[in-house]
Amino acid sequence: MLTIDALQYSNWSRAVFDAMRRGGLDCAHVTIAYHETCVETLRNIGAWNRLFELHGDLIMRAGCAEDINAAAAAGKTAIVFGFQNCSPIEDDYALVEIFHALGVRFMQLSYNNQSPLAAGCYEARDSGVTKFGKQVIDEMNRVGMVIDMSHSAERSTLDAIDYSSRPIAITHANPSSFADVPRNKSDAVLKALAGRGGMLGLSLYPPHLKHGSVCTRESFCTMAARTAELMGVEHLGIGSDLCSNQPAAVLAWMRDGRWRKPAAVDGAADAAPQWPPQPAWFESAADYPGLADGLAQAGFSAAEVERVMGQNWLDFFARSFGPAA
Amino acid sequence: MLTIDALQYSNWSRAVFDAMRRGGLDCAHVTIAYHETCVETLRNIGAWNRLFELHGDLIMRAGCAEDINAAAAAGKTAIVFGFQNCSPIEDDYALVEIFHALGVRFMQLSYNNQSPLAAGCYEARDSGVTKFGKQVIDEMNRVGMVIDMSHSAERSTLDAIDYSSRPIAITHANPSSFADVPRNKSDAVLKALAGRGGMLGLSLYPPHLKHGSVCTRESFCTMAARTAELMGVEHLGIGSDLCSNQPAAVLAWMRDGRWRKPAAVDGAADAAPQWPPQPAWFESAADYPGLADGLAQAGFSAAEVERVMGQNWLDFFARSFGPAA
Repeated sequence: MLTIDALQYSNWSRAVFDAMRRGGLDCAHVTIAYHETCVETLRNIGAWNRLFELHGDLIMRAGCAEDINAAAAAGKTAIVFGFQNCSPIEDDYALVEIFHALGVRFMQLSYNNQSPLAAGCYEARDSGVTKFGKQVIDEMNRVGMVIDMSHSAERSTLDAIDYSSRPIAITHANPSSFADVPRNKSDAVLKALAGRGGMLGLSLYPPHLKHGSVCTRESFCTMAARTAELMGVEHLGIGSDLCSNQPAAVLAWMRDGRWRKPAAVDGAADAAPQWPPQPAWFESAADYPGLADGLAQAGFSAAEVERVMGQNWLDFFARSFGPAA
Repeated sequence: MLTIDALQYSNWSRAVFDAMRRGGLDCAHVTIAYHETCVETLRNIGAWNRLFELHGDLIMRAGCAEDINAAAAAGKTAIVFGFQNCSPIEDDYALVEIFHALGVRFMQLSYNNQSPLAAGCYEARDSGVTKFGKQVIDEMNRVGMVIDMSHSAERSTLDAIDYSSRPIAITHANPSSFADVPRNKSDAVLKALAGRGGMLGLSLYPPHLKHGSVCTRESFCTMAARTAELMGVEHLGIGSDLCSNQPAAVLAWMRDGRWRKPAAVDGAADAAPQWPPQPAWFESAADYPGLADGLAQAGFSAAEVERVMGQNWLDFFARSFGPAA
């Protein structure tokens, strides 16, 4: 069984990569930018190049589905790059193709706040996808970079689903019906997403879970089963949002970037300044096998567990990561 | 016969690409940065991506020798990217690998002036290759980016030849014995270059020629024959330095960048503010066949003409553009 996690942002180290291998993780989509400029993002890619050099026995770079199969065959975890925000392309649509050439396969159009492309899920008003946003979607569609609306607002997300000529993704979020927080998604969004061939990655980040850190595996997996009924099991995968070993300072960077003073808290649901503890049954990247067991206990067939644990993402990557036909 | 030009910086347009095709040019190493920062260089790559999209019937991107053979077979001109200066990597050795991933295969360590890596050929004193310069050479050697010392000073060039673990290039210059200007190279440099497996691309830029714009083809080709005797014919190619259709403002950018006020002239040999006329027998990229004829008349055998017109560069690219063994 192939295991793919469509969102991780851990404090990368050999210990984390070891945990991935213990968990049988064949591929992780990893975040390489939140609020970074273009050059700052290149430096992050530079740091990853060094990780590939140092830990080439555990991880390898991946830009297409074939790379992931090759990683699985070699007993390594394939690493796919993505942005949680559009800051790396600055004001230049042409940087989409350049970052694609460097291995970036996902970009969120906005992260919590308004961006030049779309609104974030914590804004009071929702701009929808903007004029520049449409140009960037066209370019992402052309080169094969997946539009990710995990942190975007509802109207913006529906616009992106509708406007994009290729299926889009919400790599890490849960249904609002499970935990009603701004980051989770309405049934209307989830049905529209699936209706256009898109994918949802179910999140294991406590603020997105019913009862947070004490959410049970059974509760999570029952939600997964209900979501499969809503969307169709072929549109469901995992996007854990796992942030192993990250210091609190990183949480401040993710939330505050350079746009506000770090101490400010605006009452948003996940604005607390500390990392919440992970659920006991999903504490690290070593815990994917237990998740698969939980899905089976919640009524997924063996074939369906395989789909949700990785095969759906692999199929989606195969359709999405290359140039438009 | 394969024709490769190891340096052009024309004002790229369909007319220029048409001239390349008329001249049977199979590959051009094109300059994409003089004084540009990292992000500015990415924008230049973005502009090239658009040229590849619009003129894909005439040109194609190339990153290895196989790509050049494929271009030749398809009747297109292969485009290899290079920098005439180290400004795109700013202060970060890790950007070498990132630009290599984007197709950059040559970088000069300095352009006329002192850089953080090495001295330029117009400086009063010659730093040699610096501490950062050695780190960058190590990284260029590792990933497969060719060190080009065309605009560097003598000691710096000798240092680079000596320090680099892989052969380097002087993509566009002539022997000082032919025209004694700071940009041309001493016999000592040329012999050291060849001694370590390096390549010289002979320049057709008038300030590098005996008698400038009125240099005859016979004079140029006789110089080529003497240089082949000095270095060995296998170390010789063409690097025309052709700058077709460029406005005078571009010359100011090349020479002055942002480091001095545009009007200043410091008495350097090629500091004149206008483009010199090309020799009548090499006015555009359509004129490579006449150059091959001239080499034959100067006594090169048919096999040697093939080497100098392209095969030597192709062999060098095949050895140089990939990761170190």
